[in-house]
Amino acid sequence: MQLLYQGKAKQILATQDPHTIIVRFTDTVTAGNGKKRATIPGKGALAAHISMRLFELLSTQNIPTHYIRQLDQQSFLAHKVQIIPLEVVVRHYATGSITKRLGIPKGRAFQPPLVEFFYKSDELGDPPLCEAHIYALGLATPHELAQIVSLAQRAAALLSDYVAQRDLKLVDMKFEFGRTAAGALLLADEISPDTMRLWDARTDESLDKDVFREDKGDLLRAYQEVARRLNLTLPLSYLTRSLSASGEGQGEVEGTGEVGTGEVGL
Amino acid sequence: MQLLYQGKAKQILATQDPHTIIVRFTDTVTAGNGKKRATIPGKGALAAHISMRLFELLSTQNIPTHYIRQLDQQSFLAHKVQIIPLEVVVRHYATGSITKRLGIPKGRAFQPPLVEFFYKSDELGDPPLCEAHIYALGLATPHELAQIVSLAQRAAALLSDYVAQRDLKLVDMKFEFGRTAAGALLLADEISPDTMRLWDARTDESLDKDVFREDKGDLLRAYQEVARRLNLTLPLSYLTRSLSASGEGQGEVEGTGEVGTGEVGL
Repeated sequence: MQLLYQGKAKQILATQDPHTIIVRFTDTVTAGNGKKRATIPGKGALAAHISMRLFELLSTQNIPTHYIRQLDQQSFLAHKVQIIPLEVVVRHYATGSITKRLGIPKGRAFQPPLVEFFYKSDELGDPPLCEAHIYALGLATPHELAQIVSLAQRAAALLSDYVAQRDLKLVDMKFEFGRTAAGALLLADEISPDTMRLWDARTDESLDKDVFREDKGDLLRAYQEVARRLNLTLPLSYLTRSLSASGEGQGEVEGTGEVGTGEVGL
Repeated sequence: MQLLYQGKAKQILATQDPHTIIVRFTDTVTAGNGKKRATIPGKGALAAHISMRLFELLSTQNIPTHYIRQLDQQSFLAHKVQIIPLEVVVRHYATGSITKRLGIPKGRAFQPPLVEFFYKSDELGDPPLCEAHIYALGLATPHELAQIVSLAQRAAALLSDYVAQRDLKLVDMKFEFGRTAAGALLLADEISPDTMRLWDARTDESLDKDVFREDKGDLLRAYQEVARRLNLTLPLSYLTRSLSASGEGQGEVEGTGEVGTGEVGL
């Protein structure tokens, strides 16, 4: 199958049908705009399954997404879209980049949830944007942006409620949107602990990519815990301690660099 | 008179009346958040006179400002306000920080003018803000911000028309607002070539602080040219070639540093 796009943690592959693509999750994990990087066997399948479950959830609640159906343990079929170069971040609690950028104390709740935009541009370092910038740059029309914000807010609320029933706190998340050839706006990309922060509801322990970003322990175990709480039906081998040959959960940290999707400073 | 506040290029002094202050313009010019700095004799008086003329213009057009009346060549009396820590930038054409931050080509016209917000915070480096951040930080209410944006847009349009009749192009400008003890919202700070970009309408030559920022020539001569085009009534000595003892228009560049008002990356 033809590789259409090589991202930092995913590949986009062509199918026979020009209107669909394959989203394939790799075992690569990166942080700091690709500066820190590792391969963690099993991580791709876990992120794929979590994404699929959450896309299915949103579809049942009338959020239009690019997800169609599972193909294998690491891949799903999706509607082909042109990605809008905008990262839409919804924050329920302050943590990560916003605490440094604006001096907001970690853990502060945003009521209403804070919606932020970042320009997907590796060269520019994913700078923050306001609505007026989005129009000036021609990234979306006011009508489209109103749709995007409404979908992001609804999706964030649905996901938050869903994971709360599984003793998880949805701290923040990043959404991407795209347009089909027919002009439909769809929630695209992935919805996994690579693109959102999930904390244990009781202990505030990170069960997401921060485990890797901040060297807080075993990333695979964190994703396995999320998969268990969502009651996902993965082959048992993916939910056991470690799939890496070395037995080290954190995998091997590799060199830097790789051009790919921008990684917003969530 | 008691010094209430020492800014980078201005001093705020108390008066006998607790509701008024004196805004005194110094001959200091800084750029790069205070990293580059010089003293240029006569510059303070020119910036003061330009500000006074432009505040008067806005007052006649029902824009509420803190300006009351001239006191001397470098000072005016003003209503005392609590400054809202927000820099409101209105851009008619792209230049300066936005070309680097968002990759927008220099000289591109913004139609409608682009309104941007920056958080006045030296420690945080004056980060950009959107409306949702302003509410989350408690800097202004939605009602106040709507007023602020409307006043900034009206002031920018009035200033642009006014200088256009004097063969000047208003490229961008920074406004600050404050609240009086009685709760009134006033346009405050200054309106001078220190806080806005003015280009010669025919040649696009800078007649503002960019002359200093970018070492493009003689800052005093640029401000004198603006004063002449606005037909200001300054003592003739302020409008002659150079007031510095050394005869060097650019003055003496001094060391770095000084705590004061944030200097947004216009």
